[in-house]
Amino acid sequence: RRCHHRSTAMLDVPFPPFCAFLGTLGLLCVAMVGTWCQHWRGGFSLDGSSRTFNWHPVLMVTGLVVLYGAAALVYRIPNTWSGPKLPWKVLHGSLALGAFVLTVLGLAAVFRFHNAQGTPNMYSLHSWMGLATVLLFSCQWAAGFGAFLLPWAPTWLRALYKPIHVFFGSTILLLSVASCASGINEKLFFSLKNGTTAYKLLPAEAVFANTLGLLILIFGVLVVAALARPSWKRPDSDSPGSRQVQDALGG
Amino acid sequence: RRCHHRSTAMLDVPFPPFCAFLGTLGLLCVAMVGTWCQHWRGGFSLDGSSRTFNWHPVLMVTGLVVLYGAAALVYRIPNTWSGPKLPWKVLHGSLALGAFVLTVLGLAAVFRFHNAQGTPNMYSLHSWMGLATVLLFSCQWAAGFGAFLLPWAPTWLRALYKPIHVFFGSTILLLSVASCASGINEKLFFSLKNGTTAYKLLPAEAVFANTLGLLILIFGVLVVAALARPSWKRPDSDSPGSRQVQDALGG
Repeated sequence: RRCHHRSTAMLDVPFPPFCAFLGTLGLLCVAMVGTWCQHWRGGFSLDGSSRTFNWHPVLMVTGLVVLYGAAALVYRIPNTWSGPKLPWKVLHGSLALGAFVLTVLGLAAVFRFHNAQGTPNMYSLHSWMGLATVLLFSCQWAAGFGAFLLPWAPTWLRALYKPIHVFFGSTILLLSVASCASGINEKLFFSLKNGTTAYKLLPAEAVFANTLGLLILIFGVLVVAALARPSWKRPDSDSPGSRQVQDALGG
Repeated sequence: RRCHHRSTAMLDVPFPPFCAFLGTLGLLCVAMVGTWCQHWRGGFSLDGSSRTFNWHPVLMVTGLVVLYGAAALVYRIPNTWSGPKLPWKVLHGSLALGAFVLTVLGLAAVFRFHNAQGTPNMYSLHSWMGLATVLLFSCQWAAGFGAFLLPWAPTWLRALYKPIHVFFGSTILLLSVASCASGINEKLFFSLKNGTTAYKLLPAEAVFANTLGLLILIFGVLVVAALARPSWKRPDSDSPGSRQVQDALGG
């Protein structure tokens, strides 16, 4: 039994160093998507060319993956567990709003590029998944703002909505990283053909962007795992039933 | 408070009807991927042509998504919670082995197609994600067999490994559905061009396969949500510490 307890204690990493690792991984993803677009895809502009498109991957990875992940993890910081909750709610909502603004700008970039080139919008599975993710995110933000930041929602409504908000918080991030993977994949098929080394011959750009795709997936899975870990959750005191409710949907 | 309890009870769906819904959704995904390949992509053969490739999406969706999901959910059936555990372990391991066999055949189909056509293997992000998923799955199956079905593993090792097995169980399914989405997306770009209506003009095949991709994502998210829900988990009695250990990684 002593041996058993010792071995399980090994798994009990505290949140702060794990969070520092996640932050580093997130910044690496942002740096890599920026490097990909700057070094191999011609950089950035607002003229409707493929250099306008380049804002799309950078803004989506920065907003809907990394900043979104930071917003989701706010209540896992032990400092948020005591004292007034409102400042942390404002921080959570503000980071999510920042993620949403970057996301909308990222969508604007790809629509502007398509419209300037005469390409139809919203036909690929990537675009369907991605737009579904952004629509879910906008509902999530508006419902969270109405239920948790405005003072009018009754306690029973907050308790009812909270596990739903928690469940969709993780789901939206997973849909977002799946959308990133399909987007990087299709962009490499588009870009690596005429006048370049074909994708299938695996030039340096392909290795770099494939690696970026895997790192984004790892980031998303680790954030969702951190969110799901019971010992890192904020002990809930504001309503006696809400802890059970949160558990009921695996929140 | 009464009102609060009534509203939270609404979320408390029992597992069996939810499982029946998931089973129907899984069968719909299998039927749709088969229909896509049969009706629009020319059917099936073993001659190395694109009709050999068609086994790839059908076997991956059937094995690494639907049958894998069934294997993962075995211990959520309340009948498994009492009586001897071994028969259910054998069922869990057998369904997972069936999923693994279909997965390997699905990989063989795409390698045979590439080799017959002179196309390189393993260059796209889809292939990297997919192979990483299958490698994780093979480690998961072998480690689960060694730790839980063979009689030699000590209790402390089982208790240590169980939360890791549970965590990777959900992670592998999510990587699998993300791989399916990127694979369907790239197959539609490959297929819908010369001699067909282009993908960007959204012919019926594109709408059908995009819808399939979204249904596969929904199936994966719902299975992972069902696995995470505490009230649907098997109450653990075989070792006093294992419940805490399972919780420690959000298992």
